[in-house]
Amino acid sequence: MTTSAITEALRLPAGPVDLTTIETDVAPGFDGSKSEGKDTLFAMGDELSDLQERLWAQCTVGSEQRVLLVLQGMDTSGKGGVLRHTIGLVDPQGVRITSFKAPTEEERAHDFLWRVEKGLPPAGFIGVFDRSHYEDVLIARVHGLAEPDEIERRYGAINDFEARLVGEGYSIIKCMLHISAEEQKARLAERLANPEKHWKYNPGDLDERAHWAAYREAYEVVLERTSTQLAPWHVVPSDKKWFRNLAIGQLLLETLRGLDLAWPEADFDVEAEQQRLAAESPVQ
Amino acid sequence: MTTSAITEALRLPAGPVDLTTIETDVAPGFDGSKSEGKDTLFAMGDELSDLQERLWAQCTVGSEQRVLLVLQGMDTSGKGGVLRHTIGLVDPQGVRITSFKAPTEEERAHDFLWRVEKGLPPAGFIGVFDRSHYEDVLIARVHGLAEPDEIERRYGAINDFEARLVGEGYSIIKCMLHISAEEQKARLAERLANPEKHWKYNPGDLDERAHWAAYREAYEVVLERTSTQLAPWHVVPSDKKWFRNLAIGQLLLETLRGLDLAWPEADFDVEAEQQRLAAESPVQ
Repeated sequence: MTTSAITEALRLPAGPVDLTTIETDVAPGFDGSKSEGKDTLFAMGDELSDLQERLWAQCTVGSEQRVLLVLQGMDTSGKGGVLRHTIGLVDPQGVRITSFKAPTEEERAHDFLWRVEKGLPPAGFIGVFDRSHYEDVLIARVHGLAEPDEIERRYGAINDFEARLVGEGYSIIKCMLHISAEEQKARLAERLANPEKHWKYNPGDLDERAHWAAYREAYEVVLERTSTQLAPWHVVPSDKKWFRNLAIGQLLLETLRGLDLAWPEADFDVEAEQQRLAAESPVQ
Repeated sequence: MTTSAITEALRLPAGPVDLTTIETDVAPGFDGSKSEGKDTLFAMGDELSDLQERLWAQCTVGSEQRVLLVLQGMDTSGKGGVLRHTIGLVDPQGVRITSFKAPTEEERAHDFLWRVEKGLPPAGFIGVFDRSHYEDVLIARVHGLAEPDEIERRYGAINDFEARLVGEGYSIIKCMLHISAEEQKARLAERLANPEKHWKYNPGDLDERAHWAAYREAYEVVLERTSTQLAPWHVVPSDKKWFRNLAIGQLLLETLRGLDLAWPEADFDVEAEQQRLAAESPVQ
Protein backbone atom coordinates (compact mmCIF):
# COMPACT_ATOMS: atom_id res chain seq x y z
CA MET A 1 0.00 0.00 0.00
CA THR A 2 1.32 3.43 -0.87
CA THR A 3 1.22 6.14 1.74
CA SER A 4 0.17 9.63 0.75
CA ALA A 5 2.39 12.68 1.03
CA ILE A 6 0.11 14.00 3.79
CA THR A 7 0.55 10.90 5.93
CA GLU A 8 4.29 10.93 5.38
CA ALA A 9 4.45 14.57 6.43
CA LEU A 10 2.49 14.02 9.65
CA ARG A 11 4.47 11.03 10.83
CA LEU A 12 6.46 11.93 13.91
CA PRO A 13 10.15 10.95 13.86
CA ALA A 14 11.41 9.01 16.90
CA GLY A 15 13.15 10.97 19.62
CA PRO A 16 12.58 14.19 21.53
CA VAL A 17 9.90 16.51 20.18
CA ASP A 18 10.06 20.30 20.00
CA LEU A 19 6.62 21.57 19.07
CA THR A 20 7.92 25.10 18.50
CA THR A 21 9.69 23.77 15.40
CA ILE A 22 6.52 22.25 13.91
CA GLU A 23 4.55 24.85 12.01
CA THR A 24 0.82 25.20 12.64
CA ASP A 25 -0.36 27.29 9.68
CA VAL A 26 0.76 24.94 6.90
CA ALA A 27 -0.64 22.15 4.74
CA PRO A 28 2.25 19.69 4.43
CA GLY A 29 1.90 17.14 1.65
CA PHE A 30 -0.96 18.98 -0.02
CA ASP A 31 -0.42 21.35 -2.94
CA GLY A 32 -3.97 22.52 -3.52
CA SER A 33 -5.98 25.51 -2.37
CA LYS A 34 -8.46 25.62 0.50
CA SER A 35 -11.38 24.93 -1.80
CA GLU A 36 -9.50 22.06 -3.45
CA GLY A 37 -8.76 20.70 0.01
CA LYS A 38 -12.44 20.77 0.93
CA ASP A 39 -13.37 19.09 -2.34
CA THR A 40 -10.71 16.41 -1.81
CA LEU A 41 -12.09 15.62 1.64
CA PHE A 42 -15.69 15.55 0.44
CA ALA A 43 -14.70 13.21 -2.41
CA MET A 44 -13.37 10.72 0.17
CA GLY A 45 -16.86 10.24 1.57
CA ASP A 46 -17.95 7.41 -0.68
CA GLU A 47 -14.80 5.36 -0.20
CA LEU A 48 -14.78 5.97 3.56
CA SER A 49 -18.41 4.85 3.78
CA ASP A 50 -17.74 1.81 1.61
CA LEU A 51 -14.75 0.77 3.72
CA GLN A 52 -16.64 1.35 6.94
CA GLU A 53 -19.45 -0.89 5.73
CA ARG A 54 -16.94 -3.61 4.86
CA LEU A 55 -15.43 -3.26 8.34
CA TRP A 56 -18.89 -3.73 9.79
CA ALA A 57 -19.71 -6.63 7.46
CA GLN A 58 -16.50 -8.37 8.53
CA CYS A 59 -17.47 -8.14 12.19
CA THR A 60 -20.72 -9.96 11.41
CA VAL A 61 -18.60 -12.98 10.44
CA GLY A 62 -16.38 -12.80 13.50
CA SER A 63 -13.68 -10.25 12.72
CA GLU A 64 -12.44 -8.31 15.74
CA GLN A 65 -11.10 -5.43 13.64
CA ARG A 66 -12.04 -1.88 14.56
CA VAL A 67 -10.50 1.58 14.36
CA LEU A 68 -9.81 3.97 17.21
CA LEU A 69 -9.13 7.60 16.35
CA VAL A 70 -7.76 9.57 19.30
CA LEU A 71 -8.16 13.36 19.08
CA GLN A 72 -6.14 15.54 21.42
CA GLY A 73 -5.43 19.24 21.31
CA MET A 74 -5.73 22.52 23.19
CA ASP A 75 -9.13 24.22 23.52
CA THR A 76 -10.40 25.49 20.15
CA SER A 77 -7.98 23.25 18.24
CA GLY A 78 -10.96 21.75 16.45
CA LYS A 79 -11.77 18.30 17.79
CA GLY A 80 -15.44 19.06 17.27
CA GLY A 81 -14.79 20.29 13.74
CA VAL A 82 -13.09 17.01 12.83
CA LEU A 83 -16.06 15.08 14.19
CA ARG A 84 -18.48 17.19 12.21
CA HIS A 85 -16.65 17.47 8.91
CA THR A 86 -14.52 14.32 8.67
CA ILE A 87 -16.30 11.72 10.78
CA GLY A 88 -19.57 13.19 9.50
CA LEU A 89 -18.72 11.70 6.10
CA VAL A 90 -19.16 8.16 7.42
CA ASP A 91 -22.42 6.33 8.08
CA PRO A 92 -23.29 7.22 11.71
CA GLN A 93 -24.35 3.61 12.35
CA GLY A 94 -20.69 2.61 12.24
CA VAL A 95 -19.32 5.38 14.44
CA ARG A 96 -18.96 5.41 18.24
CA ILE A 97 -17.86 8.76 19.69
CA THR A 98 -16.73 8.96 23.31
CA SER A 99 -16.09 12.37 24.88
CA PHE A 100 -13.97 12.49 27.99
CA LYS A 101 -14.75 15.34 30.38
CA ALA A 102 -13.38 15.92 33.86
CA PRO A 103 -13.68 12.52 35.56
CA THR A 104 -16.61 11.89 37.87
CA GLU A 105 -16.14 10.83 41.47
CA GLU A 106 -16.80 7.20 40.48
CA GLU A 107 -14.25 7.42 37.67
CA ARG A 108 -11.65 8.94 39.97
CA ALA A 109 -12.10 6.02 42.36
CA HIS A 110 -10.77 3.69 39.62
CA ASP A 111 -7.53 3.49 37.65
CA PHE A 112 -7.41 6.15 34.95
CA LEU A 113 -7.91 3.54 32.22
CA TRP A 114 -11.16 2.23 33.72
CA ARG A 115 -13.42 4.73 31.99
CA VAL A 116 -11.37 4.46 28.83
CA GLU A 117 -11.99 0.71 28.60
CA LYS A 118 -15.71 1.38 28.90
CA GLY A 119 -15.59 3.87 26.03
CA LEU A 120 -13.85 1.58 23.53
CA PRO A 121 -15.61 0.88 20.22
CA PRO A 122 -17.11 -2.57 19.57
CA ALA A 123 -15.73 -4.67 16.70
CA GLY A 124 -16.69 -3.33 13.29
CA PHE A 125 -16.88 0.29 14.49
CA ILE A 126 -14.85 3.42 13.96
CA GLY A 127 -14.43 4.73 17.48
CA VAL A 128 -13.43 8.32 18.11
CA PHE A 129 -12.08 9.63 21.40
CA ASP A 130 -12.75 13.34 21.84
CA ARG A 131 -9.98 13.80 24.41
CA SER A 132 -8.80 10.54 25.93
CA HIS A 133 -6.57 8.76 28.44
CA TYR A 134 -3.92 11.29 27.41
CA GLU A 135 -5.64 13.90 29.56
CA ASP A 136 -4.35 11.86 32.49
CA VAL A 137 -0.78 12.73 31.53
CA LEU A 138 -1.54 16.25 30.20
CA ILE A 139 -3.88 18.21 32.45
CA ALA A 140 -2.90 15.84 35.25
CA ARG A 141 0.75 16.85 34.83
CA VAL A 142 0.14 20.55 34.26
CA HIS A 143 -2.12 20.89 37.31
CA GLY A 144 -0.45 18.29 39.50
CA LEU A 145 -3.60 16.16 39.69
CA ALA A 146 -1.39 13.11 40.23
CA GLU A 147 2.04 12.57 41.79
CA PRO A 148 5.04 12.64 39.41
CA ASP A 149 5.64 8.92 40.06
CA GLU A 150 2.11 8.13 39.04
CA ILE A 151 2.35 10.28 35.89
CA GLU A 152 5.57 8.47 35.08
CA ARG A 153 3.87 5.09 35.53
CA ARG A 154 1.06 6.11 33.21
CA TYR A 155 3.22 6.53 30.09
CA GLY A 156 4.15 2.87 30.29
CA ALA A 157 0.62 1.83 31.23
CA ILE A 158 -0.69 3.64 28.16
CA ASN A 159 1.81 1.94 25.86
CA ASP A 160 0.93 -1.46 27.32
CA PHE A 161 -2.78 -0.72 27.03
CA GLU A 162 -2.55 0.37 23.39
CA ALA A 163 -0.33 -2.60 22.48
CA ARG A 164 -2.96 -4.89 23.97
CA LEU A 165 -5.67 -3.18 21.90
CA VAL A 166 -3.68 -3.57 18.70
CA GLY A 167 -3.29 -7.26 19.53
CA GLU A 168 -7.05 -7.48 19.90
CA GLY A 169 -7.71 -6.08 16.43
CA TYR A 170 -7.66 -2.31 16.93
CA SER A 171 -6.04 0.08 14.48
CA ILE A 172 -5.15 3.16 16.48
CA ILE A 173 -4.75 6.61 14.89
CA LYS A 174 -3.52 9.23 17.34
CA CYS A 175 -3.72 12.88 16.30
CA MET A 176 -2.54 15.95 18.15
CA LEU A 177 -4.30 18.99 16.70
CA HIS A 178 -1.52 21.55 16.69
CA ILE A 179 -2.50 25.24 16.78
CA SER A 180 -0.52 28.32 17.70
CA ALA A 181 -1.24 30.44 20.77
CA GLU A 182 -2.13 33.33 18.42
CA GLU A 183 -4.65 31.19 16.56
CA GLN A 184 -6.27 30.14 19.83
CA LYS A 185 -6.49 33.78 20.86
CA ALA A 186 -8.20 34.64 17.57
CA ARG A 187 -10.66 31.77 18.00
CA LEU A 188 -11.51 32.74 21.57
CA ALA A 189 -12.00 36.35 20.44
CA GLU A 190 -14.32 35.10 17.71
CA ARG A 191 -16.40 33.18 20.25
CA LEU A 192 -16.68 36.28 22.39
CA ALA A 193 -17.66 38.43 19.42
CA ASN A 194 -20.47 36.15 18.28
CA PRO A 195 -23.48 35.72 20.62
CA GLU A 196 -24.26 32.39 18.90
CA LYS A 197 -20.93 31.12 20.19
CA HIS A 198 -21.01 32.47 23.73
CA TRP A 199 -22.18 29.08 25.05
CA LYS A 200 -18.90 27.58 23.85
CA TYR A 201 -16.85 30.04 25.87
CA ASN A 202 -15.84 29.50 29.47
CA PRO A 203 -13.85 32.05 31.48
CA GLY A 204 -11.73 29.11 32.62
CA ASP A 205 -10.43 28.81 29.03
CA LEU A 206 -8.43 31.98 29.57
CA ASP A 207 -7.00 30.71 32.84
CA GLU A 208 -5.85 27.58 31.03
CA ARG A 209 -4.16 29.71 28.38
CA ALA A 210 -1.80 31.00 31.04
CA HIS A 211 -0.43 27.44 31.21
CA TRP A 212 0.24 27.26 27.46
CA ALA A 213 3.98 26.56 27.82
CA ALA A 214 3.39 23.88 30.45
CA TYR A 215 0.87 22.16 28.20
CA ARG A 216 3.27 22.32 25.27
CA GLU A 217 5.94 20.68 27.37
CA ALA A 218 3.48 18.04 28.59
CA TYR A 219 2.51 17.30 24.98
CA GLU A 220 6.16 17.04 23.98
CA VAL A 221 6.77 14.42 26.65
CA VAL A 222 3.61 12.54 25.65
CA LEU A 223 4.62 12.53 21.99
CA GLU A 224 8.09 11.27 22.76
CA ARG A 225 7.09 8.65 25.30
CA THR A 226 3.93 7.23 23.69
CA SER A 227 4.55 7.38 19.96
CA THR A 228 5.14 3.70 19.35
CA GLN A 229 5.48 1.50 16.30
CA LEU A 230 2.06 0.00 17.03
CA ALA A 231 0.32 3.27 17.82
CA PRO A 232 2.23 6.26 16.45
CA TRP A 233 1.29 9.89 17.00
CA HIS A 234 0.59 12.36 14.21
CA VAL A 235 1.00 16.09 14.77
CA VAL A 236 -1.63 17.73 12.57
CA PRO A 237 -1.06 21.42 11.75
CA SER A 238 -4.49 22.80 12.61
CA ASP A 239 -4.52 26.56 12.14
CA LYS A 240 -6.07 25.82 8.73
CA LYS A 241 -9.29 24.06 9.63
CA TRP A 242 -9.72 22.63 6.14
CA PHE A 243 -6.27 21.03 6.21
CA ARG A 244 -6.86 19.57 9.67
CA ASN A 245 -10.10 17.93 8.48
CA LEU A 246 -8.51 16.72 5.24
CA ALA A 247 -5.40 15.31 6.90
CA ILE A 248 -7.37 13.28 9.42
CA GLY A 249 -9.67 12.05 6.65
CA GLN A 250 -6.60 10.91 4.76
CA LEU A 251 -5.20 9.07 7.81
CA LEU A 252 -8.52 7.34 8.35
CA LEU A 253 -8.82 6.41 4.69
CA GLU A 254 -5.34 4.89 4.55
CA THR A 255 -5.87 3.00 7.78
CA LEU A 256 -9.08 1.46 6.44
CA ARG A 257 -7.50 0.68 3.08
CA GLY A 258 -4.68 -1.08 4.90
CA LEU A 259 -7.10 -3.53 6.50
CA ASP A 260 -7.78 -5.19 3.12
CA LEU A 261 -11.46 -5.45 3.85
CA ALA A 262 -13.17 -7.97 1.58
CA TRP A 263 -16.92 -8.54 1.60
CA PRO A 264 -17.69 -11.71 3.58
CA GLU A 265 -18.66 -14.77 1.59
CA ALA A 266 -22.15 -16.19 2.01
CA ASP A 267 -22.43 -18.85 4.71
CA PHE A 268 -25.57 -20.24 3.04
CA ASP A 269 -26.39 -21.76 -0.36
CA VAL A 270 -27.18 -18.71 -2.49
CA GLU A 271 -28.84 -20.60 -5.34
CA ALA A 272 -31.00 -22.60 -2.97
CA GLU A 273 -32.18 -19.39 -1.32
CA GLN A 274 -32.93 -17.83 -4.68
CA GLN A 275 -35.05 -20.86 -5.55
CA ARG A 276 -36.85 -20.74 -2.20
CA LEU A 277 -37.65 -17.05 -2.70
CA ALA A 278 -38.89 -17.64 -6.25
CA ALA A 279 -41.05 -20.61 -5.19
CA GLU A 280 -42.61 -19.14 -2.04
CA SER A 281 -46.37 -19.13 -1.58
CA PRO A 282 -48.02 -15.77 -2.22
CA VAL A 283 -47.37 -13.38 0.66
CA GLN A 284 -49.72 -10.52 1.42
CA MET B 1 -45.55 26.78 13.27
CA THR B 2 -46.85 25.55 9.95
CA THR B 3 -46.80 21.85 9.24
CA SER B 4 -45.70 20.64 5.85
CA ALA B 5 -47.89 18.67 3.48
CA ILE B 6 -45.66 15.62 4.04
CA THR B 7 -46.17 15.66 7.80
CA GLU B 8 -49.91 16.14 7.38
CA ALA B 9 -50.04 13.19 5.00
CA LEU B 10 -48.15 10.85 7.34
CA ARG B 11 -50.19 11.62 10.44
CA LEU B 12 -52.24 8.60 11.42
CA PRO B 13 -55.93 9.26 12.12
CA ALA B 14 -57.27 7.92 15.44
CA GLY B 15 -59.06 4.57 15.38
CA PRO B 16 -58.50 1.16 13.83
CA VAL B 17 -55.75 0.90 11.22
CA ASP B 18 -55.89 -1.14 8.01
CA LEU B 19 -52.40 -1.13 6.50
CA THR B 20 -53.67 -2.68 3.26
CA THR B 21 -55.39 0.63 2.53
CA ILE B 22 -52.21 2.68 2.98
CA GLU B 23 -50.15 2.74 -0.20
CA THR B 24 -46.44 1.96 -0.04
CA ASP B 25 -45.18 3.17 -3.43
CA VAL B 26 -46.26 6.80 -3.12
CA ALA B 27 -44.84 10.15 -2.06
CA PRO B 28 -47.74 11.87 -0.29
CA GLY B 29 -47.37 15.59 0.20
CA PHE B 30 -44.44 15.89 -2.20
CA ASP B 31 -44.92 16.90 -5.84
CA GLY B 32 -41.34 16.68 -7.05
CA SER B 33 -39.33 13.99 -8.80
CA LYS B 34 -36.91 11.54 -7.20
CA SER B 35 -33.95 13.80 -7.88
CA GLU B 36 -35.83 16.82 -6.52
CA GLY B 37 -36.63 14.77 -3.45
CA LYS B 38 -32.99 13.93 -2.90
CA ASP B 39 -31.99 17.58 -3.37
CA THR B 40 -34.68 18.70 -0.93
CA LEU B 41 -33.39 16.32 1.73
CA PHE B 42 -29.78 17.32 1.17
CA ALA B 43 -30.72 20.99 1.41
CA MET B 44 -32.13 20.33 4.92
CA GLY B 45 -28.69 19.42 6.18
CA ASP B 46 -27.57 22.88 7.24
CA GLU B 47 -30.76 23.70 9.12
CA LEU B 48 -30.84 20.27 10.77
CA SER B 49 -27.23 20.71 11.89
CA ASP B 50 -27.88 24.23 13.14
CA LEU B 51 -30.93 23.13 15.13
CA GLN B 52 -29.08 20.13 16.53
CA GLU B 53 -26.29 22.38 17.74
CA ARG B 54 -28.81 24.69 19.41
CA LEU B 55 -30.39 21.66 21.09
CA TRP B 56 -26.96 20.69 22.39
CA ALA B 57 -26.14 24.26 23.43
CA GLN B 58 -29.38 24.43 25.42
CA CYS B 59 -28.49 21.29 27.34
CA THR B 60 -25.23 22.95 28.46
CA VAL B 61 -27.38 25.50 30.33
CA GLY B 62 -29.65 22.91 31.89
CA SER B 63 -32.30 22.13 29.29
CA GLU B 64 -33.58 18.55 29.41
CA GLN B 65 -34.84 18.63 25.83
CA ARG B 66 -33.89 15.82 23.47
CA VAL B 67 -35.39 14.01 20.49
CA LEU B 68 -36.11 10.31 20.16
CA LEU B 69 -36.75 8.94 16.69
CA VAL B 70 -38.15 5.40 16.75
CA LEU B 71 -37.71 3.40 13.54
CA GLN B 72 -39.76 0.25 13.06
CA GLY B 73 -40.44 -1.78 9.94
CA MET B 74 -40.14 -5.19 8.34
CA ASP B 75 -36.73 -6.50 7.20
CA THR B 76 -35.37 -4.48 4.25
CA SER B 77 -37.78 -1.60 4.95
CA GLY B 78 -34.79 0.70 5.21
CA LYS B 79 -34.03 1.58 8.82
CA GLY B 80 -30.34 1.53 7.96
CA GLY B 81 -30.90 3.71 4.92
CA VAL B 82 -32.61 6.36 7.05
CA LEU B 83 -29.69 6.34 9.46
CA ARG B 84 -27.20 6.70 6.65
CA HIS B 85 -28.96 9.26 4.49
CA THR B 86 -31.12 11.28 6.89
CA ILE B 87 -29.42 11.03 10.27
CA GLY B 88 -26.10 11.20 8.39
CA LEU B 89 -26.90 14.85 7.63
CA VAL B 90 -26.53 15.80 11.30
CA ASP B 91 -23.30 16.28 13.24
CA PRO B 92 -22.49 12.79 14.61
CA GLN B 93 -21.49 14.33 17.96
CA GLY B 94 -25.14 15.03 18.64
CA VAL B 95 -26.54 11.65 17.61
CA ARG B 96 -26.97 8.54 19.76
CA ILE B 97 -28.06 5.43 17.84
CA THR B 98 -29.28 2.38 19.72
CA SER B 99 -29.93 -0.86 17.82
CA PHE B 100 -32.12 -3.46 19.46
CA LYS B 101 -31.35 -7.05 18.51
CA ALA B 102 -32.79 -10.21 20.02
CA PRO B 103 -32.57 -9.65 23.79
CA THR B 104 -29.69 -11.22 25.69
CA GLU B 105 -30.23 -13.55 28.62
CA GLU B 106 -29.60 -10.69 31.04
CA GLU B 107 -32.08 -8.47 29.20
CA ARG B 108 -34.72 -11.19 29.20
CA ALA B 109 -34.36 -11.46 32.97
CA HIS B 110 -35.65 -7.88 33.30
CA ASP B 111 -38.83 -6.10 32.26
CA PHE B 112 -38.88 -5.42 28.51
CA LEU B 113 -38.34 -1.69 29.10
CA TRP B 114 -35.13 -2.20 31.11
CA ARG B 115 -32.80 -2.25 28.12
CA VAL B 116 -34.80 0.52 26.47
CA GLU B 117 -34.21 2.84 29.43
CA LYS B 118 -30.49 2.16 29.11
CA GLY B 119 -30.52 3.09 25.41
CA LEU B 120 -32.24 6.47 25.84
CA PRO B 121 -30.40 9.56 24.54
CA PRO B 122 -28.92 12.06 27.02
CA ALA B 123 -30.27 15.63 27.08
CA GLY B 124 -29.22 17.62 24.01
CA PHE B 125 -29.04 14.57 21.75
CA ILE B 126 -31.01 13.24 18.85
CA GLY B 127 -31.50 9.60 19.80
CA VAL B 128 -32.48 7.03 17.21
CA PHE B 129 -33.90 3.60 18.00
CA ASP B 130 -33.19 1.10 15.22
CA ARG B 131 -35.99 -1.24 16.29
CA SER B 132 -37.24 -0.59 19.79
CA HIS B 133 -39.55 -1.59 22.63
CA TYR B 134 -42.14 -2.17 19.92
CA GLU B 135 -40.44 -5.45 19.04
CA ASP B 136 -41.82 -6.65 22.37
CA VAL B 137 -45.36 -6.32 21.04
CA LEU B 138 -44.55 -7.26 17.42
CA ILE B 139 -42.23 -10.28 17.14
CA ALA B 140 -43.29 -11.20 20.67
CA ARG B 141 -46.93 -11.37 19.54
CA VAL B 142 -46.28 -13.05 16.20
CA HIS B 143 -44.08 -15.76 17.70
CA GLY B 144 -45.82 -16.04 21.06
CA LEU B 145 -42.69 -15.00 22.98
CA ALA B 146 -44.93 -13.66 25.74
CA GLU B 147 -48.39 -14.58 26.99
CA PRO B 148 -51.35 -12.66 25.50
CA ASP B 149 -52.00 -11.04 28.91
CA GLU B 150 -48.44 -9.76 29.05
CA ILE B 151 -48.59 -8.43 25.48
CA GLU B 152 -51.83 -6.69 26.42
CA ARG B 153 -50.17 -5.14 29.49
CA ARG B 154 -47.29 -3.86 27.37
CA TYR B 155 -49.38 -1.52 25.20
CA GLY B 156 -50.36 0.42 28.29
CA ALA B 157 -46.86 0.20 29.75
CA ILE B 158 -45.46 1.67 26.53
CA ASN B 159 -47.94 4.53 26.55
CA ASP B 160 -47.13 5.30 30.19
CA PHE B 161 -43.39 5.08 29.49
CA GLU B 162 -43.54 7.41 26.52
CA ALA B 163 -45.76 9.88 28.36
CA ARG B 164 -43.18 9.98 31.16
CA LEU B 165 -40.42 10.65 28.62
CA VAL B 166 -42.36 13.50 27.06
CA GLY B 167 -42.81 14.94 30.55
CA GLU B 168 -39.04 14.74 31.03
CA GLY B 169 -38.30 16.76 27.88
CA TYR B 170 -38.31 14.17 25.09
CA SER B 171 -39.86 14.83 21.70
CA ILE B 172 -40.76 11.42 20.31
CA ILE B 173 -41.10 10.74 16.58
CA LYS B 174 -42.36 7.24 15.81
CA CYS B 175 -42.10 5.99 12.24
CA MET B 176 -43.29 2.74 10.76
CA LEU B 177 -41.47 2.16 7.48
CA HIS B 178 -44.23 0.72 5.32
CA ILE B 179 -43.21 -1.48 2.38
CA SER B 180 -45.18 -3.99 0.34
CA ALA B 181 -44.48 -7.72 0.39
CA GLU B 182 -43.53 -7.48 -3.30
CA GLU B 183 -41.00 -4.76 -2.57
CA GLN B 184 -39.46 -6.84 0.20
CA LYS B 185 -39.22 -9.78 -2.20
CA ALA B 186 -37.43 -7.61 -4.74
CA ARG B 187 -35.01 -6.32 -2.10
CA LEU B 188 -34.23 -9.83 -0.83
CA ALA B 189 -33.68 -10.98 -4.43
CA GLU B 190 -31.31 -8.05 -4.92
CA ARG B 191 -29.32 -9.04 -1.85
CA LEU B 192 -29.03 -12.59 -3.15
CA ALA B 193 -27.98 -11.41 -6.61
CA ASN B 194 -25.16 -9.19 -5.32
CA PRO B 195 -22.19 -10.88 -3.58
CA GLU B 196 -21.43 -7.57 -1.81
CA LYS B 197 -24.80 -7.85 -0.10
CA HIS B 198 -24.77 -11.53 0.84
CA TRP B 199 -23.68 -10.67 4.37
CA LYS B 200 -26.95 -8.79 4.84
CA TYR B 201 -29.01 -11.84 3.96
CA ASN B 202 -30.10 -14.46 6.43
CA PRO B 203 -32.10 -17.54 5.46
CA GLY B 204 -34.27 -16.75 8.50
CA ASP B 205 -35.51 -13.65 6.65
CA LEU B 206 -37.49 -15.88 4.31
CA ASP B 207 -39.00 -17.82 7.21
CA GLU B 208 -40.15 -14.52 8.72
CA ARG B 209 -41.77 -13.55 5.41
CA ALA B 210 -44.17 -16.45 5.84
CA HIS B 211 -45.57 -14.50 8.82
CA TRP B 212 -46.16 -11.33 6.80
CA ALA B 213 -49.91 -11.18 7.50
CA ALA B 214 -49.40 -11.80 11.22
CA TYR B 215 -46.84 -8.98 11.38
CA ARG B 216 -49.19 -6.66 9.52
CA GLU B 217 -51.91 -7.42 12.03
CA ALA B 218 -49.51 -6.92 14.94
CA TYR B 219 -48.47 -3.54 13.49
CA GLU B 220 -52.10 -2.54 13.04
CA VAL B 221 -52.79 -3.21 16.71
CA VAL B 222 -49.63 -1.35 17.75
CA LEU B 223 -50.55 1.65 15.63
CA GLU B 224 -54.06 1.78 17.01
CA ARG B 225 -53.13 1.21 20.64
CA THR B 226 -49.97 3.30 20.94
CA SER B 227 -50.49 6.28 18.66
CA THR B 228 -51.10 8.89 21.32
CA GLN B 229 -51.42 12.65 21.34
CA LEU B 230 -48.02 12.88 23.06
CA ALA B 231 -46.26 10.33 20.87
CA PRO B 232 -48.12 9.75 17.61
CA TRP B 233 -47.15 7.21 14.97
CA HIS B 234 -46.37 8.05 11.36
CA VAL B 235 -46.75 5.46 8.63
CA VAL B 236 -44.06 6.28 6.07
CA PRO B 237 -44.57 4.84 2.58
CA SER B 238 -41.15 3.30 2.01
CA ASP B 239 -41.07 1.53 -1.34
CA LYS B 240 -39.47 4.72 -2.66
CA LYS B 241 -36.28 4.97 -0.63
CA TRP B 242 -35.78 8.64 -1.46
CA PHE B 243 -39.26 9.55 -0.19
CA ARG B 244 -38.75 7.54 3.01
CA ASN B 245 -35.50 9.42 3.73
CA LEU B 246 -37.03 12.79 2.84
CA ALA B 247 -40.20 12.26 4.87
CA ILE B 248 -38.29 11.35 8.02
CA GLY B 249 -35.95 14.30 7.49
CA GLN B 250 -38.99 16.54 7.27
CA LEU B 251 -40.48 15.12 10.49
CA LEU B 252 -37.18 15.63 12.29
CA LEU B 253 -36.82 19.16 10.96
CA GLU B 254 -40.31 20.19 12.03
CA THR B 255 -39.86 18.63 15.45
CA LEU B 256 -36.64 20.57 16.02
CA ARG B 257 -38.16 23.79 14.69
CA GLY B 258 -41.04 23.32 17.11
CA LEU B 259 -38.68 23.40 20.09
CA ASP B 260 -37.95 27.12 19.52
CA LEU B 261 -34.28 26.63 20.23
CA ALA B 262 -32.56 29.93 21.02
CA TRP B 263 -28.82 30.20 21.58
CA PRO B 264 -28.13 30.38 25.33
CA GLU B 265 -27.15 33.77 26.72
CA ALA B 266 -23.69 34.21 28.18
CA ASP B 267 -23.51 33.52 31.92
CA PHE B 268 -20.35 35.65 32.14
CA ASP B 269 -19.49 39.30 31.45
CA VAL B 270 -18.64 39.28 27.75
CA GLU B 271 -16.96 42.67 27.71
CA ALA B 272 -14.83 41.87 30.76
CA GLU B 273 -13.65 38.66 29.09
CA GLN B 274 -12.82 40.52 25.89
CA GLN B 275 -10.72 42.96 27.91
CA ARG B 276 -8.99 40.11 29.76
CA LEU B 277 -8.15 38.39 26.48
CA ALA B 278 -6.81 41.62 24.94
CA ALA B 279 -4.74 42.42 28.03
CA GLU B 280 -3.21 39.01 28.68
CA SER B 281 0.54 38.57 29.02
CA PRO B 282 2.23 37.17 25.93
CA VAL B 283 1.55 33.44 25.61
CA GLN B 284 3.90 31.17 23.77
